[in-house]
Amino acid sequence: MRIIVDAMGGDNAPLEILKGCALAVKEFSLEFVLTGNKEIIEKAISENQLDLGRYEIVHTEETISMDDEPTCVIKEKKESSLGKAFSLLKEGRGDAVVSAGSTGAVLVGATMIVGRIRGIKRPALATLLPGDTGPTMLMDCGANVECRSEMLMQFALMGSIYMNKIQSVENPRVMLANVGTEDTKGGPLQKESFELLKNSSLNFCGNIEGRDILSGIADVVVTDGFSGNLILKTCEGVAGMMYSNLKQVFKKNFISKIAAAMVMSGLKVFKKKMDYTEYGGAPLMGISKPVIKAHGSSNAVAFKNALRQAFEYHQNNVIAEIQDSLSAKKEG
Amino acid sequence: MRIIVDAMGGDNAPLEILKGCALAVKEFSLEFVLTGNKEIIEKAISENQLDLGRYEIVHTEETISMDDEPTCVIKEKKESSLGKAFSLLKEGRGDAVVSAGSTGAVLVGATMIVGRIRGIKRPALATLLPGDTGPTMLMDCGANVECRSEMLMQFALMGSIYMNKIQSVENPRVMLANVGTEDTKGGPLQKESFELLKNSSLNFCGNIEGRDILSGIADVVVTDGFSGNLILKTCEGVAGMMYSNLKQVFKKNFISKIAAAMVMSGLKVFKKKMDYTEYGGAPLMGISKPVIKAHGSSNAVAFKNALRQAFEYHQNNVIAEIQDSLSAKKEG
Repeated sequence: MRIIVDAMGGDNAPLEILKGCALAVKEFSLEFVLTGNKEIIEKAISENQLDLGRYEIVHTEETISMDDEPTCVIKEKKESSLGKAFSLLKEGRGDAVVSAGSTGAVLVGATMIVGRIRGIKRPALATLLPGDTGPTMLMDCGANVECRSEMLMQFALMGSIYMNKIQSVENPRVMLANVGTEDTKGGPLQKESFELLKNSSLNFCGNIEGRDILSGIADVVVTDGFSGNLILKTCEGVAGMMYSNLKQVFKKNFISKIAAAMVMSGLKVFKKKMDYTEYGGAPLMGISKPVIKAHGSSNAVAFKNALRQAFEYHQNNVIAEIQDSLSAKKEG
Repeated sequence: MRIIVDAMGGDNAPLEILKGCALAVKEFSLEFVLTGNKEIIEKAISENQLDLGRYEIVHTEETISMDDEPTCVIKEKKESSLGKAFSLLKEGRGDAVVSAGSTGAVLVGATMIVGRIRGIKRPALATLLPGDTGPTMLMDCGANVECRSEMLMQFALMGSIYMNKIQSVENPRVMLANVGTEDTKGGPLQKESFELLKNSSLNFCGNIEGRDILSGIADVVVTDGFSGNLILKTCEGVAGMMYSNLKQVFKKNFISKIAAAMVMSGLKVFKKKMDYTEYGGAPLMGISKPVIKAHGSSNAVAFKNALRQAFEYHQNNVIAEIQDSLSAKKEG
């Protein structure tokens, strides 16, 4: 499989991106098309003696920064590392795009250059949240600030396919994020979505409140992109604050430092379990080819996990599955 | 000050409620009107030798359960412990109501029986979230699933007054929960609210993402009740999951148990800082008299803190301040 990598996207590009590629080729059968500044990329590879296996570089001058308007990827910056990556994907020069760059530009570029799966109303950002009993997929995490119920219904379908094909969850439990568990909770969007989901062939298990999203009672949690983004980032914020406070507890004095050493292995397991970059990036589901948005602050390991995710998305024919479900539904 | 206490509301009623009252009278100059089953209340007080200071019991037969429709508080269960509490508040038999009962019923009862402050479009549930540099007020946390921008503007005003009067924050920083920090982020509600807030006399500091809500950059975060409720409960969920995982780390073996003992004092400070019941309950702001919703699972200390909050709300004339601001705005 051939992955097109936006080598210039993300806070730690290109070095951590390239290191991530080098880690990935050790585990999966991959080759890369790297988009970005050829000189900078080659220098980073040679200076760090990275072995990326088979790769080619497609030179681009420009990079999209966080301050750029997302639409620049199809306008003034369509020749940027990200814009070029999507053109190459559309042309079939690779099988997937992975980028740690601007979420907005990834969305616009994927939708406008690569295009949606026929029948899908809107693509959605899907994030795997860590849980005690395995990950839970939350979608949409910010692609669509405003949603209609048919969109949430499609998110549920796509999320179910992902969890089934890639996380090997038999009959994934779908739940609807809401302000209470009773069937009639929420506004019009929730009430309409509840009805659609209840009458679908999916394994719909009702409404779920914020406090239960990480509890493992759902495999897929669907919501609009506005609340989904706030949920996702609140998780990050709370976890980050708790870690930094915990660090202070352990760093306080000599005794506490010894205590830290005594439970270090346990703490590492704990930290790894809570670290959602372990699961990779966020697939942009509903696009006609695999597009994975890696976290902006991805380090090499996080980026490698996003590459693994692109690999699995491709190998497991997630997109064909979505297409089949949509046409089955139409015929059915 | 005389607080009307719904003695039967909450998972641990009446015992923890009554214990909370006994703790509160040691710290504040309070007397109570307890609504609920007289026999049960008296038995709990005498069996546990609780000293509640000056109190009277107003007997009610019924209790509102979590399965009841919220509107029952003004219909078939208006003579319940909660319904009676609101009638007594309206009649002036006390200065505030504190209940750990059903949030929905508290909302309906407070709005329909006690009534809103003149000029306030909708009351909002305001929760104090723990932060490294002090609490942040999040509102609305679930009273209004659907909001208009003028409502968010009023939430900002009420939250600012609360943080100024009760938390002694000079010129509270108000921020709008959103999917990005740029001025133009979000849907119509966010864009309209942004303009209103920007042109107000409040100290509006722009949009805030989920990950920064606990970071201390805002004193008041405003959002609609749907996303606010999800944010609040996600905080609870993540914190709860992290605690339980951390417990497992420390309970793993003999060595880890020793390590836990070595950092116990630090962990306790940490836990206390993250525990939002420390700040009390959620004031239902915009109601013409003080109404505090204590957490449903309140223990005695949490309920005492909710009583303290009612005390401070009353002593600091929060309601008069809101009224003054509204009329100043009208005149200005």
